[in-house]
Amino acid sequence: MSGPLINKFVVVGIGLIGGSLATGLKQRGACREVIGISRTPQSCADAISHGVVDRAYTSLREVASELGKGDIIFIAVPTLAVTAVLKEIQEVIDPAVTLTDGASVKGSVQKAAESVFGKVPAQFILGHPIAGSEKSGVTAANPNLYEHHRVILTPLENSSPEHLQQVTAMWQAVGAEVLSMSVEEHDQVLGATSHLPHVIAYSLVDTLAQDIGNPNIFRYAAGGFRDFTRIASSDPVMWHDIMRANKAAILASMDLFIDNLSRLRASIEHEDSEQLLRVFSRAKEARDDFTQMLAQRAVHKRLN
Amino acid sequence: MSGPLINKFVVVGIGLIGGSLATGLKQRGACREVIGISRTPQSCADAISHGVVDRAYTSLREVASELGKGDIIFIAVPTLAVTAVLKEIQEVIDPAVTLTDGASVKGSVQKAAESVFGKVPAQFILGHPIAGSEKSGVTAANPNLYEHHRVILTPLENSSPEHLQQVTAMWQAVGAEVLSMSVEEHDQVLGATSHLPHVIAYSLVDTLAQDIGNPNIFRYAAGGFRDFTRIASSDPVMWHDIMRANKAAILASMDLFIDNLSRLRASIEHEDSEQLLRVFSRAKEARDDFTQMLAQRAVHKRLN
Repeated sequence: MSGPLINKFVVVGIGLIGGSLATGLKQRGACREVIGISRTPQSCADAISHGVVDRAYTSLREVASELGKGDIIFIAVPTLAVTAVLKEIQEVIDPAVTLTDGASVKGSVQKAAESVFGKVPAQFILGHPIAGSEKSGVTAANPNLYEHHRVILTPLENSSPEHLQQVTAMWQAVGAEVLSMSVEEHDQVLGATSHLPHVIAYSLVDTLAQDIGNPNIFRYAAGGFRDFTRIASSDPVMWHDIMRANKAAILASMDLFIDNLSRLRASIEHEDSEQLLRVFSRAKEARDDFTQMLAQRAVHKRLN
Repeated sequence: MSGPLINKFVVVGIGLIGGSLATGLKQRGACREVIGISRTPQSCADAISHGVVDRAYTSLREVASELGKGDIIFIAVPTLAVTAVLKEIQEVIDPAVTLTDGASVKGSVQKAAESVFGKVPAQFILGHPIAGSEKSGVTAANPNLYEHHRVILTPLENSSPEHLQQVTAMWQAVGAEVLSMSVEEHDQVLGATSHLPHVIAYSLVDTLAQDIGNPNIFRYAAGGFRDFTRIASSDPVMWHDIMRANKAAILASMDLFIDNLSRLRASIEHEDSEQLLRVFSRAKEARDDFTQMLAQRAVHKRLN
């Protein structure tokens, strides 16, 4: 072996997602050096004092001249801030540097790259780690966050195989399983399995807090309610950005859900026992199959 | 002390709720004997072999003559089966025996008792333990299920203070905190904090399984989705019964939720950032306050 997988790993935006990948690569010796970029000097200082990065700067320009082949820039800023980062990259970063990102919506990143570069550059491999937490910020950074988690890459026709291989190896180095699909399928799948549940959780908590008209309502809620609404404690700004960035897919899945729920409402109103039992039973079956699949996947990982 | 709190504890319906209370009282020495009643002989045999009850019968009639003051009958059958049990009680059980139940909806039990007895008898204290699991059946019975959980009793004007005191002491003996409220408030509160989330979880899983049109959709869902939909693995028959029994309150809270979600949908469609951030932020705040209250309650319990 000729040394670590990655030479310099540069993380732009040192929050939970970026900080966890940085400290994960560092602890596993998968990169020679970790450089953090954050607009606020306090975040830079925090990232250094928490041992998440080796050096930190408030602008990518300060390290641009030292980056080349074998280095990776990971864009981990809120979705709607990606365009500004890409503009800076377009101006100062060498096309030999590998670029990737962790944004929850891929269509909006593709559009941002097209608006800045004309087309998505071959060096830029769009990606999304399916991991997270309702916690946020560099203090929540966890070197094992991605272990046994999936990362979806959405390479394009002109993506460079070398850069794709480098990004794949980077995620595998922190224990993630790497999958590939189209930008469109990614945004539809995540719209339904992640973005829709978040909107529902926010709306349910808001309904109880604002609309029910019983100020004691939460006093009698139990642990099941806490688990069900955990994702409503997620960062509002991040989720606002996702709603804007994946608007079409989210609206489409919200419409399907509101239709389904309205049909269920009619079955309750008309005391249609047969239909209620049919829906509850097939939902339970689908959900039990899903958890069995997750369990088998975990066993498979322990055996391999 | 003159011996255990309860003489004979009779549990009608030996599933998770009834079995857990039976084995909890037994293990704590809070009753002299536990008798199980189940219509199916196999359930009787299972309850005995799992050590959940001392004796078991397929009909309450077989033990009626031996029950009197100091004994408790706990009705733990599915909500819509309560009427049949009450009819048997009305025919063969002494008015000195304490009666209580664990059904999730109290208005329907009150109506059932009124239809059988004319009015709810003074010996019958309606109750509901706010505890459960997506598992069910006697094999899931857990003697510590109710520890640190709340039990809501809904006594009526003519309820007997002695029977109320006996039921309160019974729940405290297994570590539960006993609260009191009206039947109407109970059903509204539970409709919003428990029944509504269950309908939503069933409907969300069903939307993904039936309506999205992507057979691989669950392959890419993550642990967050598993936690969010855990309650969709609950027993379909039990939840069908609850939908029937608490129909009015559930429909009312579904309407409030569908309205709230539809307003959120409009904010997403019109990219109303201010409104999205306002809703997400106040939902996060309400949910964070709620979990802080649960945490303080847990600390308070450890200190006392």
